[in-house]
Amino acid sequence: MTESAQLTGVVPPLVTPLTPSYDVDTASLARLIEYQLTGGVDGVFVLGTSGEGTFLTDDQRQTVLETTVAAVAGQVPVLAGVIDTSTNRVASHISTALKAGVDGLVATAPFYAATHPAEIERHFKQLSARADGLPLYAYDIPPRVGTKLPASLVTSLGEQGVIAGVKDSSGQETSLRELVLQRREKKLNGFAVMTGSEVTVDSALAFGVDGVVPGLGNVDPSGYVRLFKSAVAGDASAAREEQDRLFRLFDIIHVADRSRMGASSAALGAFKAGLYLLGVIDCPLTAYPSIALNDTEIAAVRPLLDRAGLH
Amino acid sequence: MTESAQLTGVVPPLVTPLTPSYDVDTASLARLIEYQLTGGVDGVFVLGTSGEGTFLTDDQRQTVLETTVAAVAGQVPVLAGVIDTSTNRVASHISTALKAGVDGLVATAPFYAATHPAEIERHFKQLSARADGLPLYAYDIPPRVGTKLPASLVTSLGEQGVIAGVKDSSGQETSLRELVLQRREKKLNGFAVMTGSEVTVDSALAFGVDGVVPGLGNVDPSGYVRLFKSAVAGDASAAREEQDRLFRLFDIIHVADRSRMGASSAALGAFKAGLYLLGVIDCPLTAYPSIALNDTEIAAVRPLLDRAGLH
Amino acid sequence: MTESAQLTGVVPPLVTPLTPSYDVDTASLARLIEYQLTGGVDGVFVLGTSGEGTFLTDDQRQTVLETTVAAVAGQVPVLAGVIDTSTNRVASHISTALKAGVDGLVATAPFYAATHPAEIERHFKQLSARADGLPLYAYDIPPRVGTKLPASLVTSLGEQGVIAGVKDSSGQETSLRELVLQRREKKLNGFAVMTGSEVTVDSALAFGVDGVVPGLGNVDPSGYVRLFKSAVAGDASAAREEQDRLFRLFDIIHVADRSRMGASSAALGAFKAGLYLLGVIDCPLTAYPSIALNDTEIAAVRPLLDRAGLH
Amino acid sequence: MTESAQLTGVVPPLVTPLTPSYDVDTASLARLIEYQLTGGVDGVFVLGTSGEGTFLTDDQRQTVLETTVAAVAGQVPVLAGVIDTSTNRVASHISTALKAGVDGLVATAPFYAATHPAEIERHFKQLSARADGLPLYAYDIPPRVGTKLPASLVTSLGEQGVIAGVKDSSGQETSLRELVLQRREKKLNGFAVMTGSEVTVDSALAFGVDGVVPGLGNVDPSGYVRLFKSAVAGDASAAREEQDRLFRLFDIIHVADRSRMGASSAALGAFKAGLYLLGVIDCPLTAYPSIALNDTEIAAVRPLLDRAGLH
Repeated sequence: MTESAQLTGVVPPLVTPLTPSYDVDTASLARLIEYQLTGGVDGVFVLGTSGEGTFLTDDQRQTVLETTVAAVAGQVPVLAGVIDTSTNRVASHISTALKAGVDGLVATAPFYAATHPAEIERHFKQLSARADGLPLYAYDIPPRVGTKLPASLVTSLGEQGVIAGVKDSSGQETSLRELVLQRREKKLNGFAVMTGSEVTVDSALAFGVDGVVPGLGNVDPSGYVRLFKSAVAGDASAAREEQDRLFRLFDIIHVADRSRMGASSAALGAFKAGLYLLGVIDCPLTAYPSIALNDTEIAAVRPLLDRAGLH
Repeated sequence: MTESAQLTGVVPPLVTPLTPSYDVDTASLARLIEYQLTGGVDGVFVLGTSGEGTFLTDDQRQTVLETTVAAVAGQVPVLAGVIDTSTNRVASHISTALKAGVDGLVATAPFYAATHPAEIERHFKQLSARADGLPLYAYDIPPRVGTKLPASLVTSLGEQGVIAGVKDSSGQETSLRELVLQRREKKLNGFAVMTGSEVTVDSALAFGVDGVVPGLGNVDPSGYVRLFKSAVAGDASAAREEQDRLFRLFDIIHVADRSRMGASSAALGAFKAGLYLLGVIDCPLTAYPSIALNDTEIAAVRPLLDRAGLH
Repeated sequence: MTESAQLTGVVPPLVTPLTPSYDVDTASLARLIEYQLTGGVDGVFVLGTSGEGTFLTDDQRQTVLETTVAAVAGQVPVLAGVIDTSTNRVASHISTALKAGVDGLVATAPFYAATHPAEIERHFKQLSARADGLPLYAYDIPPRVGTKLPASLVTSLGEQGVIAGVKDSSGQETSLRELVLQRREKKLNGFAVMTGSEVTVDSALAFGVDGVVPGLGNVDPSGYVRLFKSAVAGDASAAREEQDRLFRLFDIIHVADRSRMGASSAALGAFKAGLYLLGVIDCPLTAYPSIALNDTEIAAVRPLLDRAGLH
Repeated sequence: MTESAQLTGVVPPLVTPLTPSYDVDTASLARLIEYQLTGGVDGVFVLGTSGEGTFLTDDQRQTVLETTVAAVAGQVPVLAGVIDTSTNRVASHISTALKAGVDGLVATAPFYAATHPAEIERHFKQLSARADGLPLYAYDIPPRVGTKLPASLVTSLGEQGVIAGVKDSSGQETSLRELVLQRREKKLNGFAVMTGSEVTVDSALAFGVDGVVPGLGNVDPSGYVRLFKSAVAGDASAAREEQDRLFRLFDIIHVADRSRMGASSAALGAFKAGLYLLGVIDCPLTAYPSIALNDTEIAAVRPLLDRAGLH
């Protein structure tokens, strides 16, 4: 990916397939990547929230990166999540990612400790200095990090050349539109604004967002590619129809019994169950200590796949 | 610390002194420990929230542990924070801590991902299995972790021998009392309940809490030791008077301009400024990317130290 | 408004103009209504959040209703906010509204006390029984009420004929889309879904929402009418352009110094300042005890009106 | 109650007994008051949160006030809740309360709209001007009102003679201690600081709070009176023992099935069920649209009463 290539289109945040003993299942990961490339995605993003990056050891993270770079083989850009609590810890993940040969880096604000925008700015500046010229993307996911990245900070970091774009998983349409407006007003050409929301992609594309990083894209990459192409072609009606279908497919995250597991486990478990039922990965386990979907819950995903036309 | 020694008394969560170039300042750390031991503390806790553990690299964490164990030299127990996002990452810190020769381990629930109590239970069980017989303490700090540890889970883990106690930094007096009541009802002898609140220690000790892990104890260990001794001796009036003095000393965390730094930076910066002004540490810097207190703010800490009788 | 007339289009929630002595300024209210009708709005909604209904006495509420019904004179439907803490108190406002001759009623869930969906359902059923056949709309505004109306409850109340539609001011695009999908799936013909968000109207209309209840529409009714007409005509580009202009006009709510007043006062004060500067109302005062915008703040609204082409 | 009488001791916030048809049950209310006076309370507070004041019509509020003033007959002070959304609406309740002959008034900050401390200050000043010399108390209950009263505002209003004290139901021990410290530092003699927490009364009294307004005191006034007397007599051990017993009695609020009713309904329903089982009131119904405890839930309250020694 050269400097001038702006991130765009469908870039699913890949799950990390695991073996029954909680090792990285590299064969399943390679199949997942093949499934994505066949589906027509414009890039892949590993070790993000969907990739359970914060659950993996440093060695496991490295395995995921190397497996992905090898399997993708330059066909699309590979973005690597380098998510950790603070600047120096993220910097260590950046080193690993650079060695693995990825095409871009994705980092959140520091978390656990409460930070101020001025501190987040220092964080990204230091990370950018360690990135060896690779594009660095800010990842805005307030429910996980505890902080919302202000639009003015994001676009200021873009103006300074610190970050090449943002993945907005805040779910706040107003701030996403503010980002798009500021980008235009500041003439931030080449600065990528991607949404992380699975269920509002047609809207986001219509008001100027460049693409989507949908967890649900693990299960249905073709659907998101169709949605994106319809939107780009100006066929709002087809885009909305596709979005509505995917909206209902997203109901799989509500299949698991939330009295026995967390929200993250329920959502990721459903994505993995879908991929398992579709024959893409061998085992639907989520990372320890997450509770996995049981057989009944996995079976309940099937009719929702069917309804969405996935077999 | 033998199996039978229950944690009790004053166990400050030590700050990590840094050099102007953000390295661990081992000489200052040794002086801080000397200051604490002279103050009469019953233990020290390193690499917690006050210790900026989540800001440090693995190497820096190891340096802090080794320096502390050497400086304490067995005079009191050394507790090590092993805080990280998930079970396997925490387990890696446990290995380092075991090698360094600490006396106890302190872990939070997983964070970044949203977890369920059943998942938190699995987390602590796995950690306990890695602890090589050392006591493991649960650290309940909802504003940082995003989850409140239910009292019933904490005491259940105690009954199962998974954890040896809890440090409650939730600031929720009701749940702290619930813990104390459940401990009595379940006859959990030897299970330690420590409060992490600096400003309600006399109350907590009065209703049955065993001790305190006060960030402000970095600055005034003797004060907390006096408070604890008064409470144990049944002199509620002296305990309250000491608490009231420390309550006002705690105002140092409001000295910094919050429009330019986060809450964590303001509080930790004030603790370090206090220690710097008292001549205990050489440099009041907080960990990168935290904004440090400026000279004016540091100077503003002085009169509050004076008012509290610290010189 | 007959039974079959579904709410649609632009229905601004009118502010309540006040005199310098905090009385209802009926002459200014009549002028505001004239301004709205000239702008082409499809209805008006009085005594909502923008109308400061919860600040007014019962007598003042009655004055607003009577003035509005007289000034509108049947040209468009008049919706009346009947917002209060609990069922019986709302019912009393319904009686007043019925006597005044309004065309529809708008009620929130109970607030102050914490309620459950089953309790909210009882609330709306009782209100519907008191409504004398007038359409009743649910008003979903979680930041004020403390509860989010579940989509399934809203559409269930629609199926039961209890409510005729919903005004969604939750700002949560996902739940708004869920409402629209459920309406289609449940074949709830004639059930109105209106958004209360000023800044995402083109998106909402594109995915199937029927209209908008924009506070900012007080200041620029024509803009919202143009936006709505463009969207209905299928000109997404023109709709987005108009929305972008209104998005920037909405910046007026950030003009006031938030260190001296609350968020409600800043927003409403800006709407009233805009109307005052445009010569529509005589006095920009907000209801007691709200702090009013000062002269400097009012003056700062002017260039934002100019930028938006309002003179 | 003369000007010089500072509020102190146990002042339960009385529930409002209802008939099966949701009318105020004045006979049961009179018996409840008799039960309280026999229990030795120092005052009664009607139309607060426990009194479901926000659920009652103006007429019902008046009935409660008149019944209470008549039944108390001057034996202890009667405080009246005058809770409503905004200044003028509260002022109207003040008029009614003055006519009924109460001894003090209790008001929250405005709610529904978001207010700033400067606006809350204007609110209380205006209310004080309408109070005809009766003491006005600020009621701090953030979960209901959406705002926390800053300690500095509360004590400033005390210095200005606007309010005579505060009922703190924030559940935040730190801010309650801040209030007590500021009162001492500002020499605010006669300014009452009361806690609204049922389960931390011994602590609060130990650090200087004057008394308690416990919802659970409806069910066990004698228990709170014993607790208060023990604390005042300096018998911390007896106070704690009594508090521990009441802490466990408070478990009655968890008896109801929270999947079918809200938190308010579960707590108030339990208080009323307790009074019903003790023969004090005739019907345990909570105000419409609250879901009432069913027979099974009511029966489940009995063993908890028994365990606490209430028959």
